[in-house]
Amino acid sequence: MAFSLGSHFPFLAAYWQPVLLAALAAAVVHLLLERRRARTAAARPAPWRDESVSESAVDPAPPPPAEKTAARVPYRPARLGADEMVRRAEQFYRELNGRRSVRHFSREPVPRAAVEAAIRAAGTAPSGAHTEPWTFVLVESAEVKAAVRQIVEDEERVNYEKRMGAQWVQDLAPIGTDWRKEYLTEVPFLVLAFRHAYGVDERGERFTTYYNEISCHLACGLLLAALHQAGLATLTSTPLNCGPRLRRLLARPDNEKLVLLLPVGLPAADCTVPDFRRKPLDKIMAVC
Amino acid sequence: MAFSLGSHFPFLAAYWQPVLLAALAAAVVHLLLERRRARTAAARPAPWRDESVSESAVDPAPPPPAEKTAARVPYRPARLGADEMVRRAEQFYRELNGRRSVRHFSREPVPRAAVEAAIRAAGTAPSGAHTEPWTFVLVESAEVKAAVRQIVEDEERVNYEKRMGAQWVQDLAPIGTDWRKEYLTEVPFLVLAFRHAYGVDERGERFTTYYNEISCHLACGLLLAALHQAGLATLTSTPLNCGPRLRRLLARPDNEKLVLLLPVGLPAADCTVPDFRRKPLDKIMAVC
Repeated sequence: MAFSLGSHFPFLAAYWQPVLLAALAAAVVHLLLERRRARTAAARPAPWRDESVSESAVDPAPPPPAEKTAARVPYRPARLGADEMVRRAEQFYRELNGRRSVRHFSREPVPRAAVEAAIRAAGTAPSGAHTEPWTFVLVESAEVKAAVRQIVEDEERVNYEKRMGAQWVQDLAPIGTDWRKEYLTEVPFLVLAFRHAYGVDERGERFTTYYNEISCHLACGLLLAALHQAGLATLTSTPLNCGPRLRRLLARPDNEKLVLLLPVGLPAADCTVPDFRRKPLDKIMAVC
Repeated sequence: MAFSLGSHFPFLAAYWQPVLLAALAAAVVHLLLERRRARTAAARPAPWRDESVSESAVDPAPPPPAEKTAARVPYRPARLGADEMVRRAEQFYRELNGRRSVRHFSREPVPRAAVEAAIRAAGTAPSGAHTEPWTFVLVESAEVKAAVRQIVEDEERVNYEKRMGAQWVQDLAPIGTDWRKEYLTEVPFLVLAFRHAYGVDERGERFTTYYNEISCHLACGLLLAALHQAGLATLTSTPLNCGPRLRRLLARPDNEKLVLLLPVGLPAADCTVPDFRRKPLDKIMAVC
């Protein structure tokens, strides 16, 4: 049986050009709208992900200037008995379990050497290909602390009022936070941790800092432990959208991205913390 | 002067429909190609960013089941003298500075209670809105260790031979790594850290785990410190592209994403490590 477009679809046969035009025009409009949606979505990651802190695309960069020698040395740390291992692990747990995030600080000074030793401890963290992709800025000048506070409060006001959304603000209510950050000018020290999104060698050439985010975060974990071991209190704060302004204030180069802002000092005499419990071991560990 | 399409562009006047059709068809093809490029690019972040580990888009999720009480309790940790602060911070630094990533392990058993106490210590990390978004899987079964090793070696072989690129493999040469991971079946324990990309409450409802990546990484930093304090050695490994297979092997739910795989044990008697130095304080700290 012969098929004739005209006999089955006389309208299409007469008007195929305008019909095809309309269909193609609709496709173009659809694809343009889709592209716009994709761009909007890409510009809005999880709201607590500061875009200035997100992982940059990998550069086709030269190698890190890691020591290229394959020289190896024996590693023979002190061997502990089984009981001593358990005793030390449990003691360290009990010590760390006494740590709380503090938002009410005393103005009492603390020794800078203790904070420096804690930063040294942070610097012992492992890092991808041993690139050590971190800088810790120690702020002790009252003027710089005031400038940091100004930037953070500016942005936090917008965060709380516009960016975060009612749900998030409600979730934070039990913790008692808002946009005001008096503690930033009350503490003896601020420590700002920056990760290196890429490295720069002595000749000014860029190199790749593998796993720089998690490496710097691990270093910050060691820093929290070290400050606590030294009897110092801090607050693990992630100032949303403040990264670029704080980086410029502190004259850090382009490749450094703010990760954490830690006020460091002693708790105020009347310091209180929310009456939180931590999950028991069986809620955070599974055994296979 | 009157304008006539026919007199200026007689070809267009006669054939405007096929010309417009061709233009629209070209636009559709262009947009489709662009969409395909964008999807390919999105699927290829920095090569060491396992897509299964990347931050998921934020869900419009109900609140975390954080304790909603605003009850506050006094926080009065022990006060140390300034000299004692410095002494403790420097001692902790010296201890951590003795830590090295180990790739040659002994088969000697170590007490499970020490590893459990280290996991408890990790669980004291701060987290966004106190959601504690982490699970640590402790593997002690020889069969499960063998299955983990099989998955990791399968993927690592492809990573080293195809995904990582000559530069990265060359950068790792001084460290002496390749796709073989004997240590995964030699160590007494494996600890796999999973972050919770979102939470699930008792009723099965999802909730948002703010800052779950950095929170879990900080917990892992505490875990590294705790294992070291207990005299245990580990390797901070990030098994690329193994996350989903390991998650299924260990029967962890969909919301959990693999962050680190840590073999835990004692260094082999003949263990060696690359002769690396750590950066001095003035290379990792800036003062303002």
